[in-house]
Amino acid sequence: MSPYPSQISVDEAIELVCSKTPMGPPERVPIDLALGRTLAKRLASRADHPTVDNSAMDGFACRMVDTAEASEDDPAILAVVGEVPAGRPYQRSVGLGEAVRIYTGGAVPCGADAIVPVEVTRERAGRVEVLEPARRNHIRPKAQDLKAGRSYLEPGTRLDSASIGLVAAMGHATLSVVRKPRVGILATGSEVVAPGGTLKPGQVFNANAYSVAALVHAAGGEPVHLPLVPDDAGALEGVIGENLGLDLLLTSGGVSMGRYDLVRDLLLDGGEVFFWKVAMRPGGPVMFGRWRGLPILGLPGNPVSSVVVFLLLGRAFLDTFLGRSDPLPYHRRVKAQAGQTFRASGAKETFQRVRILRHAGSAVAITTGNQSSGVLRSMVEADALAILPGGTEVAEGDDLEVIPLHPHLG
Amino acid sequence: MSPYPSQISVDEAIELVCSKTPMGPPERVPIDLALGRTLAKRLASRADHPTVDNSAMDGFACRMVDTAEASEDDPAILAVVGEVPAGRPYQRSVGLGEAVRIYTGGAVPCGADAIVPVEVTRERAGRVEVLEPARRNHIRPKAQDLKAGRSYLEPGTRLDSASIGLVAAMGHATLSVVRKPRVGILATGSEVVAPGGTLKPGQVFNANAYSVAALVHAAGGEPVHLPLVPDDAGALEGVIGENLGLDLLLTSGGVSMGRYDLVRDLLLDGGEVFFWKVAMRPGGPVMFGRWRGLPILGLPGNPVSSVVVFLLLGRAFLDTFLGRSDPLPYHRRVKAQAGQTFRASGAKETFQRVRILRHAGSAVAITTGNQSSGVLRSMVEADALAILPGGTEVAEGDDLEVIPLHPHLG
Repeated sequence: MSPYPSQISVDEAIELVCSKTPMGPPERVPIDLALGRTLAKRLASRADHPTVDNSAMDGFACRMVDTAEASEDDPAILAVVGEVPAGRPYQRSVGLGEAVRIYTGGAVPCGADAIVPVEVTRERAGRVEVLEPARRNHIRPKAQDLKAGRSYLEPGTRLDSASIGLVAAMGHATLSVVRKPRVGILATGSEVVAPGGTLKPGQVFNANAYSVAALVHAAGGEPVHLPLVPDDAGALEGVIGENLGLDLLLTSGGVSMGRYDLVRDLLLDGGEVFFWKVAMRPGGPVMFGRWRGLPILGLPGNPVSSVVVFLLLGRAFLDTFLGRSDPLPYHRRVKAQAGQTFRASGAKETFQRVRILRHAGSAVAITTGNQSSGVLRSMVEADALAILPGGTEVAEGDDLEVIPLHPHLG
Repeated sequence: MSPYPSQISVDEAIELVCSKTPMGPPERVPIDLALGRTLAKRLASRADHPTVDNSAMDGFACRMVDTAEASEDDPAILAVVGEVPAGRPYQRSVGLGEAVRIYTGGAVPCGADAIVPVEVTRERAGRVEVLEPARRNHIRPKAQDLKAGRSYLEPGTRLDSASIGLVAAMGHATLSVVRKPRVGILATGSEVVAPGGTLKPGQVFNANAYSVAALVHAAGGEPVHLPLVPDDAGALEGVIGENLGLDLLLTSGGVSMGRYDLVRDLLLDGGEVFFWKVAMRPGGPVMFGRWRGLPILGLPGNPVSSVVVFLLLGRAFLDTFLGRSDPLPYHRRVKAQAGQTFRASGAKETFQRVRILRHAGSAVAITTGNQSSGVLRSMVEADALAILPGGTEVAEGDDLEVIPLHPHLG
């Protein structure tokens, strides 16, 4: 028996990650910096919107009864007695036979109960001819959109451009969001060289640290690049043993079976392992544990595997920390039609990179080609990950569940 | 005859915006800051990836011929003569009857033509028993993913997490992206109050500046907030007359028919008007022009209208400036089924906020409720904009074209 869960399902792994992840603390930020952040507290409107009944049109405010019979041939004639200034109420009341000039957004004056759009009027020397009946529905009622004191955004909401507009419309210059998790990113392996360097035979550029940092950023975390660690246990402890104020450490490499598997050894020796290996492909040799209080998610060394494991399991950490109310990528699935036969080669749940074509109103999934986990190009070309439960085959034309990638890639 | 195009179609307006927009200059950025930027030059790989034939498994490199008959009952027995160090080639050649220990990613040594995974071996005192034939397809061939000198990313590509990984895998520490357009954001109107303030009757919080700034940010631009301008021509010229180094000015408010329409007057007096009014709903009273060399897009004052006009026309400016190769939001449509009757109330092309429900494998569009352009809540709840050509009615169950919102809202 293994001393920790091994070869567990993706669902079980997500469950374990979520259960070990604390909710992050709130912090206040100005609205300008709130895009992509997650709301920490429900947000109520500071005012009615609109504050008063106002006009949806440029035109004239008047009494409906005065124009009830108005027509092109027999216009109602009203005296223009004033104008509603922008952002301020008109000071007097509108009487019978009177009209007050009003612009879109202007407060409907006392006495008036309808608006005539300027397009259906003719002006003549202090009077206005109204060519059709004035209508009440050109008035936007007070508090139509927002009522003072009522909440319109719930905690856990990720703030996009539309909700940022709503925050502003509610009158908030600052708001309480969850602090971004600080996520350390550490690549291990003597063969790994930082981009910009020169490769010797057998060496490889460090792609994972950059794709994973971008994924962390897109998910609302703050990536912190740590130095590349060669295959040397002392070097690893030297880097992560310092107090870096991290909420999570993501390592890449170091969790397969080779003896260079520093991260696993570190956790096995002086930490806790919550699970090692998940029954998924790509990305099986993933580990989750804790070392001196620091949660560590060990991603596989292959660039595609590290992206997939981050999307399925890393996001479980980040989304839990942020308290996000929308579903995880693993649960945000849509149906597509298989554009070819898909096969899980083995008992593990398999995620294949696919492109979604629109064909006669259907979404059709086709492979992006070589599914080797070393081939990042087929990830760049992919729109979605097709989910194939272990041992299954999906025939061309059959339904396939896919996880759309673009919302998560930033 | 109007001295400029008026009541033109959305397509014509997009065409005009694109034709007046210059392509932005390139600048070099470190890969860490490249997420969401647009590639200015095609990018070739600096090295082969992998640099050498390497192992896809932890196990042993050997000669295929030695294990061709190997089985559980009659294993092939090989002498373990060494180990491939990470990131460096094995110095000697593998001979007949020999095996060299290798880890995932290790360079396949000279002489070896196959890999036996460690799972199908037993080790005994310097020897390894191989329980099944070694396979050539556990070797990842040199340059399988990337060939040195070949281009894998084209100019106009918006860089997401996957393509950032590819940039790193190609060995680039910095890259050439299009400079972000600096987009000034200016709200006009004496009734507009900055969030955080207190509203008097008839006043309204400035929502547009914040939703539009977030949209600019999400589209890859740099929003620059300008001071709120009251209904006073001198104040407007005072703000935008200074050299702010802007590539575009977005104004909100000031382009309907009221006499407070400062922006229109400014353009009509001392600038050029490329078009005024587009046959669309919401968002009709939009203006595009230039004043002292500064392109100005005048958005309507209603919060929903300003978001819709930004997505349809503002994005035409930003995407052209950035040279983006993917289609504009207006052209990135998908089909959905109408979950109710939809009607364009009038001759203008109409965009209605809808929520997309997944129902029996289909995407079904239903309205988010009040479509008044003052109601931002129904934009926050929307997943997509349904497109209704002027004068059309789409019956429940019929096909409807929609523009998905989420990719564009940040």
